[in-house]
Amino acid sequence: MLIHSIKELREKRKEWSGLKIGLVPTMGALHEGHLSLIKKAKETCDKVVVSVFVNPIQFGPAEDFDKYPRTLEADKALCDSAGVDVVFAPSPDTMYGSGNRLSNDTLTYVCPPFFYVNKLCGKTRVGHFDGVCTVVLKLFNIVQPDLAFFGQKDAQQVIIIKKMVKDLNVPVEIIQCPIVREESGLALSSRNKYLSEDGKVEALVLSKILNNIKACYKRGINDVSALKETAYSYLTDKHDMEYLEILDKDTLEEQEKANDNSIALIACRVENVRLIDNLYLGG
Amino acid sequence: MLIHSIKELREKRKEWSGLKIGLVPTMGALHEGHLSLIKKAKETCDKVVVSVFVNPIQFGPAEDFDKYPRTLEADKALCDSAGVDVVFAPSPDTMYGSGNRLSNDTLTYVCPPFFYVNKLCGKTRVGHFDGVCTVVLKLFNIVQPDLAFFGQKDAQQVIIIKKMVKDLNVPVEIIQCPIVREESGLALSSRNKYLSEDGKVEALVLSKILNNIKACYKRGINDVSALKETAYSYLTDKHDMEYLEILDKDTLEEQEKANDNSIALIACRVENVRLIDNLYLGG
Repeated sequence: MLIHSIKELREKRKEWSGLKIGLVPTMGALHEGHLSLIKKAKETCDKVVVSVFVNPIQFGPAEDFDKYPRTLEADKALCDSAGVDVVFAPSPDTMYGSGNRLSNDTLTYVCPPFFYVNKLCGKTRVGHFDGVCTVVLKLFNIVQPDLAFFGQKDAQQVIIIKKMVKDLNVPVEIIQCPIVREESGLALSSRNKYLSEDGKVEALVLSKILNNIKACYKRGINDVSALKETAYSYLTDKHDMEYLEILDKDTLEEQEKANDNSIALIACRVENVRLIDNLYLGG
Repeated sequence: MLIHSIKELREKRKEWSGLKIGLVPTMGALHEGHLSLIKKAKETCDKVVVSVFVNPIQFGPAEDFDKYPRTLEADKALCDSAGVDVVFAPSPDTMYGSGNRLSNDTLTYVCPPFFYVNKLCGKTRVGHFDGVCTVVLKLFNIVQPDLAFFGQKDAQQVIIIKKMVKDLNVPVEIIQCPIVREESGLALSSRNKYLSEDGKVEALVLSKILNNIKACYKRGINDVSALKETAYSYLTDKHDMEYLEILDKDTLEEQEKANDNSIALIACRVENVRLIDNLYLGG
């Protein structure tokens, strides 16, 4: 069932009173990664809502909001065959009002802590996580799920959303699901659609660097600088590295020595497509 | 019933599933103004929660957080006799975690739009409305009320909270209740406790100025500058005026000409106690 309006969604939600509701928030262009979230939601909830909304306020002015893939019909078909109960696909006007300039001057924002934001993707994507938290809280308030499902692919995002839920006492449990990869190792992403076949090969550098860091850690190297330096041998002029960090996986605190609670995170442009990936060093 | 812990409150809330819940958020030091909110809540809801929490993050470093009156026993007794079902009185540690420095560096904040914040009380109380919105959203998420009751005394606050509820799709209806005044005209406020008997007489200047502006408006004067100038004849060196504004009562937009949708708002220090008041010019 496809719902575009908040009012209709709220009515449906009322019908479901007493049931266990799962929400999978997405920007559409659904792939196997999203499907793994939906599958988990189906296993644990009575009713599953997938939201499909390309959220304007989490894109910077120079980012890919306009060209971000929009494939609602295919998304709807995928959701139907996965047994999703409602696909909620509001318009930007439905979410933010029409005629509103979308800015802190006119809209209430949810602003996660600087400590979590001023690093990794937040360093270059200024305002991105304010936009993410704001839309996620809006979706939580509209759908009122018991559980919400997020992929570990966007590691900083899920840490920040967990922090928001804790800080604001949001009555929703956050379920984090593992990264889904192609057989090659490439982490699934809607932005992979921007890549040529050659680009997809070059993009393997992200997972290769992470896997090698983990292998080195397992062999006993725990000095973070040394681990990060192992990346350079993989990089060519096809790769425009944005960051490579090894941090505490829950708090995003810096570490001098890696441990089993560490996560390695990478962002790198290939064919001018910004790709991210991450890997837990422990476990 | 007095509850200090979030867990216990959530359990009580679960027992009330299906009932209509009203929340009256307060900082305690309850007076007839608060009681009017509680009375309204009792009339319209099955169960009424009054929260009593002096919220540290809405006070500036030079403000009166430490000396703000704390009278929980008396507040509890008043609530009991008014038929309140639960008084929720969490500690700062319960609300914000222990050991957290309370700052944007470590906590998720709800930030209302600059347009609503950068005027009136927000001009001098930097960060105040971020703190208010953050704690109110937290209380909403903990108590999950159907209705929440706020006094018009804090006019900018209730406008900002309504805007937050709209912007973030918060499933709570905001009920605004009229200002309660002493027979003298003085608007009730927990901060009136700081005033001497002489101070309470001097404090009448706020309501006198507002009443005179309304009288002038009713007599046909609608030029905002002219209306504001009528205040000067009331002021002496006992009064340290912070602002006097005439704005649209819903949007806080400036007006050159007052109309029936205007509100006059005043903030003035008497005996170094910061007092506020407001009055609708229409109706």
